[in-house]
Amino acid sequence: MSDTRKHVEVCYTPGEYNYFQPGYEIVVVIDVLRATSAICAAFDNGIRSIIPVPTVEEAMEYKKKGYLAGAERKGQIVEGFDFGNSPFSYMREDFKNQEVVLSTTNGTKALDIAKDAEMVVVGSFLNLDALCRFLAEQDKNVLCLCSGWQDKFNLEDTICAGAISDYLLATGNFTSEEDSSVAAKYLYLSAKDNYFGYLKSSSHRRRLKNLNLNEDVKYCLTPNQTDVIPILKDGKLVKL
Amino acid sequence: MSDTRKHVEVCYTPGEYNYFQPGYEIVVVIDVLRATSAICAAFDNGIRSIIPVPTVEEAMEYKKKGYLAGAERKGQIVEGFDFGNSPFSYMREDFKNQEVVLSTTNGTKALDIAKDAEMVVVGSFLNLDALCRFLAEQDKNVLCLCSGWQDKFNLEDTICAGAISDYLLATGNFTSEEDSSVAAKYLYLSAKDNYFGYLKSSSHRRRLKNLNLNEDVKYCLTPNQTDVIPILKDGKLVKL
Repeated sequence: MSDTRKHVEVCYTPGEYNYFQPGYEIVVVIDVLRATSAICAAFDNGIRSIIPVPTVEEAMEYKKKGYLAGAERKGQIVEGFDFGNSPFSYMREDFKNQEVVLSTTNGTKALDIAKDAEMVVVGSFLNLDALCRFLAEQDKNVLCLCSGWQDKFNLEDTICAGAISDYLLATGNFTSEEDSSVAAKYLYLSAKDNYFGYLKSSSHRRRLKNLNLNEDVKYCLTPNQTDVIPILKDGKLVKL
Repeated sequence: MSDTRKHVEVCYTPGEYNYFQPGYEIVVVIDVLRATSAICAAFDNGIRSIIPVPTVEEAMEYKKKGYLAGAERKGQIVEGFDFGNSPFSYMREDFKNQEVVLSTTNGTKALDIAKDAEMVVVGSFLNLDALCRFLAEQDKNVLCLCSGWQDKFNLEDTICAGAISDYLLATGNFTSEEDSSVAAKYLYLSAKDNYFGYLKSSSHRRRLKNLNLNEDVKYCLTPNQTDVIPILKDGKLVKL
């Protein structure tokens, strides 16, 4: 009897994406600190669409054309832009129903790399349960693509991917084969009772703390604050 | 007061090596299942030197010239060669004091990528404590380079790297900053009481079990069977 279960696997960095594809119809792009958390917060706040762009130059081109455009590099807002990837920067009345352009260090790069997949959705702790319920209902292979930090592994994205894997595996309709997925699940199980404490040793959490962004970190590590599932359609993120 | 501690960090795959270097004088190449375990076993058995080559073609060239040459791909001995990377294949009387050429799927590729570092040594569970004692005595930054599995993360190399990190961090003279190192240590601490059980879910352990190589796996996961530290000198591995 052949195994009809779907795969849920975890890719740690955008650079490894091509070692996994093809084979996964759904890609979940994860950048917990902070791009995909900010994107979820933005849609929860009523933003109409987000155009993710990989480079600062592209974001600036849009800004010159009159778009609301944000850019972040190495944790900070890029000079010449009004906002970056803090979730709080999207909680503005004047952003409701607007289209926004965004470029970030890691998250928008991962979205760009995954853009040709059949379906690309945005994952974070903020929309964890809603996203997992949605993924469980599809009859598709799922690849969790961690954005990492400057092409390297990061802990918070991996733990979020491990949480998604754990949920889908528990349905009995999914299986994992890659060691990266096994390790992500192990790390999630160790972390799940206290994300904030567990991630004290995360390099990016330290980096953001040094930038006085501890409130951002706390917000991004608080699960299930929204049911929105941002999805990529024709180069733009919209609400599913 | 500046931090004078040295770094011990973990790189999960050869493909990420350049994101870490420069900065690490010592690179520990790890391919637990089975290349670096086999290399340790070979030196423990009295082999004089091993020439690691990245491709099967290069190994064949040496064989034609009369060298003892082995090659392994995807867990199996390559056709035309007499041995691959089983540690047991090096426990032969006629290998004592000989020079051997070896090409394997992942391990010799990692050695090739690291070859320009100031010092390249070979790590495995077999020589774990001896290697850690040696590394602790040097006043150098250490990068543990996991060979992975076909450019992807693997669990057994990561756990071995986590064991090395844990030892060096406990001396108080080392620090880790990368998330990959933090996660490797977490995974090691979960695995250390039962490597064999913990690695039941490792994809390569399953692969080798299917090839009836369970005895190899057990051997490779048994720590501290030898004090040898293989080191790369002018393109050849020799005993330190």
